[in-house]
Amino acid sequence: MYKLPKNIEEAIKEFQKLPSIGAKTAERLVFFLLRKPESFSEHFGGTMSKLKKNWSLCQECFSFSEHEKCSICADDTRESSTICIVEETTDLIALEKTGGFKGKYHVLGGVVSPLKGIGPDHIRVRELVNRIETNKEISEIILATNPNIEGETTAMYIVKTLKDFPNLKVTRLARGLPSGGDLEYADEETISRALSNRTNF
Amino acid sequence: MYKLPKNIEEAIKEFQKLPSIGAKTAERLVFFLLRKPESFSEHFGGTMSKLKKNWSLCQECFSFSEHEKCSICADDTRESSTICIVEETTDLIALEKTGGFKGKYHVLGGVVSPLKGIGPDHIRVRELVNRIETNKEISEIILATNPNIEGETTAMYIVKTLKDFPNLKVTRLARGLPSGGDLEYADEETISRALSNRTNF
Repeated sequence: MYKLPKNIEEAIKEFQKLPSIGAKTAERLVFFLLRKPESFSEHFGGTMSKLKKNWSLCQECFSFSEHEKCSICADDTRESSTICIVEETTDLIALEKTGGFKGKYHVLGGVVSPLKGIGPDHIRVRELVNRIETNKEISEIILATNPNIEGETTAMYIVKTLKDFPNLKVTRLARGLPSGGDLEYADEETISRALSNRTNF
Repeated sequence: MYKLPKNIEEAIKEFQKLPSIGAKTAERLVFFLLRKPESFSEHFGGTMSKLKKNWSLCQECFSFSEHEKCSICADDTRESSTICIVEETTDLIALEKTGGFKGKYHVLGGVVSPLKGIGPDHIRVRELVNRIETNKEISEIILATNPNIEGETTAMYIVKTLKDFPNLKVTRLARGLPSGGDLEYADEETISRALSNRTNF
């Protein structure tokens, strides 16, 4: 029986550890790398090895950052009065792409999930409370957790926690039909939210 | 504008160099790695970096091998009289998976492709001729290049070259309907080949 060299076999196995990459795709990716010069796979490997180096979390909003403060927290033109709460840095990126938000962020680093054993102490709620206590400028908190059960649970927990700040306005992203969507294929929950939150034309 | 740390950006760009991985998938793969401990991405990177190390080509059949001879060429129970010609080591693996071939292989390392500037001298035809001249045992050559224009061109070139060995039997893999296929959706070329090569029931 023919066996591929160990280093090739291992590379195929490593690719299969990544999401949505099965045996066939992993083989195809490795054979692509094999057709390239050695410097190509070495550079690819080197880049992956140093992925988690030379950066940490912004000391203010906890997004991925190369400096003590991320470019948003360090930007004086951004409004410090509004803080948008997101689950992950990826959500921050999605919101930034719209260009429609001029405030600052707070990255929770996860969601409350009793099933996975993740409680409110595992995400950065305490840090949010500290931030609000320290920075008297903050007047509005926008909850932008994901519109699913875990995101909702997390949002509700934060709303409860923020009851201690009676002057703070707490809002959330609107729920309704997604743009470009199809009423026919929208789920009941989405349609009933769109109905109850209907706006004037 | 928020910018991801350089090392994360670079990892996303590296993934996009791989076939069938676009910007969204690359981001998803990198954020998967980011959620894992640092040792995970380091091990992944290390494996890719050493992909092309500690192996070379079998001195007899030119498949990927950790030793001077691959496990097939070193296996005395395999028939040395029949040599199956394949384009790449991956084709050898596909044939081996059937368990139906007991002979040995010869990996060309490519196909003749005038459009890409790849001539017969760029693939291992000379090595095949040397092998046949040296090894008088060889009595049959099975051409197993891919059933497309480049594979056909290469096969035809080899057939012409092997005319110098009048006692050598030269065969090719059968062409016809693929198992599990659908006559309705088969292309005309496949159907006419299946018709002209029809076999007795």
